[in-house]
Formats: sequence, structure tokens, C-alpha cells
Amino acid sequence: MRIARFSYGETVSFGVVDGDPARPETLSVTPIAGHPFAPFQLSGEPVALADVRLLAPVLPSKVIGIGKNYADHAREMGGEAPAVPTIFLKPSTSVVGPAEPIALPAGAGTVHHEAELAVVISRLCREVPASRAKDVILGYTCANDVTDRDLQSSDGQWARAKGADSFCPIGPWIETTVDPSRLRIGADVNGTVRQDGTTADLLTGVDELVALVSQTFTLLPGDVILTGTPAGVGPIVPGDFVSVTVEGIGTLTNRVVARD
Amino acid sequence: MRIARFSYGETVSFGVVDGDPARPETLSVTPIAGHPFAPFQLSGEPVALADVRLLAPVLPSKVIGIGKNYADHAREMGGEAPAVPTIFLKPSTSVVGPAEPIALPAGAGTVHHEAELAVVISRLCREVPASRAKDVILGYTCANDVTDRDLQSSDGQWARAKGADSFCPIGPWIETTVDPSRLRIGADVNGTVRQDGTTADLLTGVDELVALVSQTFTLLPGDVILTGTPAGVGPIVPGDFVSVTVEGIGTLTNRVVARD
Repeated sequence: MRIARFSYGETVSFGVVDGDPARPETLSVTPIAGHPFAPFQLSGEPVALADVRLLAPVLPSKVIGIGKNYADHAREMGGEAPAVPTIFLKPSTSVVGPAEPIALPAGAGTVHHEAELAVVISRLCREVPASRAKDVILGYTCANDVTDRDLQSSDGQWARAKGADSFCPIGPWIETTVDPSRLRIGADVNGTVRQDGTTADLLTGVDELVALVSQTFTLLPGDVILTGTPAGVGPIVPGDFVSVTVEGIGTLTNRVVARD
Repeated sequence: MRIARFSYGETVSFGVVDGDPARPETLSVTPIAGHPFAPFQLSGEPVALADVRLLAPVLPSKVIGIGKNYADHAREMGGEAPAVPTIFLKPSTSVVGPAEPIALPAGAGTVHHEAELAVVISRLCREVPASRAKDVILGYTCANDVTDRDLQSSDGQWARAKGADSFCPIGPWIETTVDPSRLRIGADVNGTVRQDGTTADLLTGVDELVALVSQTFTLLPGDVILTGTPAGVGPIVPGDFVSVTVEGIGTLTNRVVARD
């Protein structure tokens, strides 16, 4: 099942997406009552997806990022992958949906795309063993862990480099039934392939990441864990369209602009 | 004016604290209608402060931490202060109030207290010039930027070391009228002074910090900026009582326990 969040007229709703993503004209979204973190019922008529505005599929209280979780990306960044993947935070204010641009702040350095599989948490939890991680996962979406490489290097801490407004696009929806362990994942910029990997190469897998981060942080419904990016990261500049595609989930496309 | 958040019976409210902190028996709190981020009115009778449970005075969407913003602390950590202070994030789930313990997770390393002046933001804002920072500040409170030094060193990124549940005590209340530029700030553990500094030694002052962080992040009402810690940080262990005192604001005391 694909769960989206969208605005239609004056209303913002969660909804269930039906149809074939390969034939966009078949896609529709049917609103649900309330939120998707508990059993829910459909609450309206389907609307053509082309007629709604897709929003970030959740509003996370926090986004927990994972660095250097693919060996080929760790190497392209000039190092080896650490024994424990690097954990960092992106704030709620960095999250945008498919319809919003990545807006580069004044004075931004070289800003890179990072295609990632994102895990959406379904319930309040802490100290979840890997064997029970699936019990706290609502589903998966695509994410772009946008990063200012110059600030990342000069600051040391990655909060500014990865935490600016709009530096965490997620979407287009949450896929609740896909097996995340062997999905092709990639990014293209203006139609040119930049990243092309597979989640089979994750050094620390999804269940183990949930266990790892929930040792430290209480996770809340809608919180997002980014799982790291494969090799091929590269620059994006105003005017670009950058797409992250994860097999079995969908494609998240954002345009890049200079912040007003 | 001192603004607290408290529970009394079944109700959680914001309120205004009156009385002399040097004579705790004189302290009372009067509830207000709604929240303190807009003009408000008192909405009830004063209650003795001893009869309520003080909570974290705000529930921030994010806490923005500042590292190495006192030269003497930068030196004790083995380095010099950077040209731009180091910016990091602590999640909302790390925030606790005066009545809650600092709970050390299983496997925690050497955990240190860090006494800090905390700035509470009053309104949604971005790209605030330093000259207008006071327009977006509700007031100031005490904070303890609790840090696991072993994780800080081994992880490189500080999210786990500083972001665990309960690693951001704030309180006891927000003081809205104090001038933050020259306040004595300190920490004691079980009555023994560990840190004793002054905010006059902040390398980057409050107004400039608001300008700096709001260049990157949209700030929301209730968001908190920690301003860094003076020299004297040291270990806390279960059974300890650790207090942070900022002149003109008050004292925030938390006991330290092992997480259940």
C-alpha cells in the first residue's frame, strides 16, 4: 500500500494511492480519516493524483541520518566505512515534499544530492531489538540527503551542512509492503544517471539501524531514519531537477533554486 | 517575568512565577490562558510552587547547540576555539525538566555536565539580523548540555553523544527580562562547584548566535539555542545531583540515574 499526504483545495489529508506509477494517468489518491499510524478507513472519493499537491508524506519530529553505510560511497569520500555507521540529525524544518524546491541559501558552497532509502517509524519506541524492528516500521520512502560539502568540511559537525531548510526532501509516498533488503536505488540530475546502487550493499541493514538508533533516541510516529547513500554523489545547482528513485517505492523529484 | 510550565493535578499549564527564589516558601505560580508566545492573561489563582511539578518550560521542536564558545573550555578540550562556533543539534526527545532525572543509557561512557545559558525563541523566523535578534527571543533559561565524552570521541558526529533521551535538561523557568550579556554561570555536583564562569566570556554573543543559526534553520516558537559552556566540565554518575545556575535566572537541578 502507498500512503501519501496531500493538499486538495483547502484540505490537507493522508490518503492511499492506487494505480500504476508507470502510467501516471492511472494514479489516484483516496483520503483516509485521521492519520496512518493506527488502523484507518477510507473517507472519500478517489481524486486523480495529477489534481492534488503531494506533500512530504510525514512530518517527522526528527530525521536521523546515517553516514558511510555503503562501502563505495565511503571510499569516494576518501575513507573507509566505520565499524558503527555515523549517526547525525536533520531537523524537522529541513523536510520538504515532492512539490517543493531544494532552495540553496545565500553563500551555499558546493551542494550535493545523496539518494537514500528512508524508513518511516510507526509508533513510539525505544531499545527495539533488530528482530522486532519491523513492528515499529510503517514503511519506506525516497529521500535526498542534500549536503553542502564545503560546510560539511569546514564545520566538522554536519548540522548546518545537512540541516538547512529544504535539505531533506522525502516522498513521493510511503510504501508499506516492500522488502527493503535488495532494492535498486539511484539518483539522476536532469535525466543523467548519477547514482545507481542497491540496498543489498547497505553495510548496516534496516532492522539493525532501527535497533542502533533506538538505543539512544526515543522514536516517535513519523520519525524518519535515512539509511545512507551509494556512490555517485555530485553537485546540484539552481535550475536542476534532481530525482531519487527506489525500486518498488517510486521517484522523488525536486527542482533546485536559489533561496529567495 | 518568569514563565514556567507545570503540572498541577491533572492539568499542564504555562504560568507566571512570583516570589523570591532565595526564599522558596515565597514562590508561587499563576496559570495563564494558552501559551506565552503571544500576549496572554492570567487565568487562575496562584499556587505555591512547592505544590506543582515544574516541567521543561518549553517543548522545543529542535535544540541548536553551540560548541567551543568559551575560550577556556575550548582549551580544556584540547584545542582552540574555531572562527565560527561549532553548531550541532539535540532532538526534542532529549529535553527534560527540573523534576526528571538524567538517565544514563546502558553502556554509557563517561558522561559530563555542561552548564549553559539557553535562549528561547518566541516566533517563527529566518535570517534574523543580530540587530533584531531581541525581537525573536522570548527569554532565557538554564540548560545542561549532557555529553557522553566517549561517544563524542568515537562517533565524531555528536548526535548520539549529546542527543540521548534526557540529555537536555532545561529550566526551571524562562526569565524574559534579564540582560544575558554578563551573567555568572556555573554548575555544581552534590554541592561542589565544578564550573564558574560568566557569559561576558561568550566568544559569539547571543544576538550574533541568533543571526548565525537563523541563516541556516527556520526557528520555531519554543526552539532553544544553547550558547556553549565555560571551563570545568566533569563527570556525573548515578546518584549525583547536578545543578546549573545562571545569575538572574535561577537554578536547574537534576538527579542522575541509570536508565531503567
